[in-house]
Amino acid sequence: MSDKAARRAQMLEERYGLGYEPKGIIWNEQVEHMMNHRSIRTYRADPLPEGALETMVAAAQSASTSSNLHMWSVIAVTDPGIKSELYRTSGHGNPFIEVAPVFLLWVADQSRNNAISKANGGSAIVHDHLDAFVMATIDTALAAQNAALAAESLGLGTVYIGGMRNKSKEVADLLGLPDYAYVAFGMVVGYPATEAQGRLRPRPSQEVVLHRNRYEADRAVKIAAYEEPFKHFREELGMKEKTFVEAVGFSANDLIYMDGRENLRLTVEGQGFKLL
Amino acid sequence: MSDKAARRAQMLEERYGLGYEPKGIIWNEQVEHMMNHRSIRTYRADPLPEGALETMVAAAQSASTSSNLHMWSVIAVTDPGIKSELYRTSGHGNPFIEVAPVFLLWVADQSRNNAISKANGGSAIVHDHLDAFVMATIDTALAAQNAALAAESLGLGTVYIGGMRNKSKEVADLLGLPDYAYVAFGMVVGYPATEAQGRLRPRPSQEVVLHRNRYEADRAVKIAAYEEPFKHFREELGMKEKTFVEAVGFSANDLIYMDGRENLRLTVEGQGFKLL
Repeated sequence: MSDKAARRAQMLEERYGLGYEPKGIIWNEQVEHMMNHRSIRTYRADPLPEGALETMVAAAQSASTSSNLHMWSVIAVTDPGIKSELYRTSGHGNPFIEVAPVFLLWVADQSRNNAISKANGGSAIVHDHLDAFVMATIDTALAAQNAALAAESLGLGTVYIGGMRNKSKEVADLLGLPDYAYVAFGMVVGYPATEAQGRLRPRPSQEVVLHRNRYEADRAVKIAAYEEPFKHFREELGMKEKTFVEAVGFSANDLIYMDGRENLRLTVEGQGFKLL
Repeated sequence: MSDKAARRAQMLEERYGLGYEPKGIIWNEQVEHMMNHRSIRTYRADPLPEGALETMVAAAQSASTSSNLHMWSVIAVTDPGIKSELYRTSGHGNPFIEVAPVFLLWVADQSRNNAISKANGGSAIVHDHLDAFVMATIDTALAAQNAALAAESLGLGTVYIGGMRNKSKEVADLLGLPDYAYVAFGMVVGYPATEAQGRLRPRPSQEVVLHRNRYEADRAVKIAAYEEPFKHFREELGMKEKTFVEAVGFSANDLIYMDGRENLRLTVEGQGFKLL
């Protein structure tokens, strides 16, 4: 087996565990780049290379945008004071937010289009509906994912910070967001602290997520096979013993997990979204 | 200038128009692949190559997922009858949904985790909050964007279909979605009907979307410069004369634009989400 073939086989093994392998993956450089994704949680303080941020934004803008409406903004925070304040809102122990040189705040942003509409005598009634909130959120995520892949292609690491929704009102105020805009998530960007790349985090088999023609309700049981790679990964990293079922239970049953996210609706409504 | 340098300069010109160019873009194959994205709206009926779907799903699963919770599913519709019914719900003249071999429905899916939690005696109270809906929607979009890039790397075309939220209840029923799941968007996949690649669709300058340290409210006015590339693109494609301001106005002020999406909240609540 060539080095490349061995590397790719290893990726599949890490991504899906030993008991399952998807059939007939067609490899190329793009696919390998995406399959090789890891979230990075230790960073050097070195600044990004010149042009890296602009490259990420160009990639982000090249993603599809619903009805060509460009419903997002991104705030690149490099100011140490603002980074620290944002970090303090997230509460969940992501100290690397303060270490890494850039913290991106991805803003689902209907404010521009809302202002344009109203300045031209419109009601902007569409923005009062849940769909306008969903549309901006999706636009933002598509853009951010391109930006993350671009960063990784430059040798940088990234990690998404959903915790930016924990104290969403404080975050909106800190950043001075206008109405019809909210922070969907953050993203840390910087050089990984170590060259060593850890294992890929395992995922459930494709049978769990890929359905044919209709939603196949019996697929859910296939998630049981995920416990083994889930356990194996945690053991290798020396993480506390926990099953996937336990992790899901904590995330679903315990408001401690939310750490303020239960107030997201209040914040979003405070930002003017009506979610009708 | 080498062919490659000329091609890349051309991409920037098409993406941003003649009056603006972002500084210092760092090119590589990944960046070029993303910058070269076009939504494809004419397809051949030929099936996807063996393994293409599995490759897209592997790429999708390699995207980040919030708290490792895998809150999405994808339904690959190849059945012509179901494709036709889905097409009919979208109403907006996307006949290529029926032509292309595969129509993917991207499902923001808390149903698995909800069922796991309740089967183990949990309340799953977290899923009643808006954040759980947002989190699943973001997870779904990150995954889908990787899948789209994977498809494009295999020579396939894609286009997102937000119109799958127009008649969202009919779509959910057609696909037999469980509670705590809704279709965030569709995605057509297939071989483009023509080899000829059209121009890249222009975007506003980076000054419009990229802010530093705080949200800079005065950036919104920079969108005015977007009218020129917007107009130029429409002229080249022989599209009806329309300014960006007019396009935004229609999308914001007119419920005709929504074509049923004003009922998304009803559907989502009918699926069990409480959006608290």
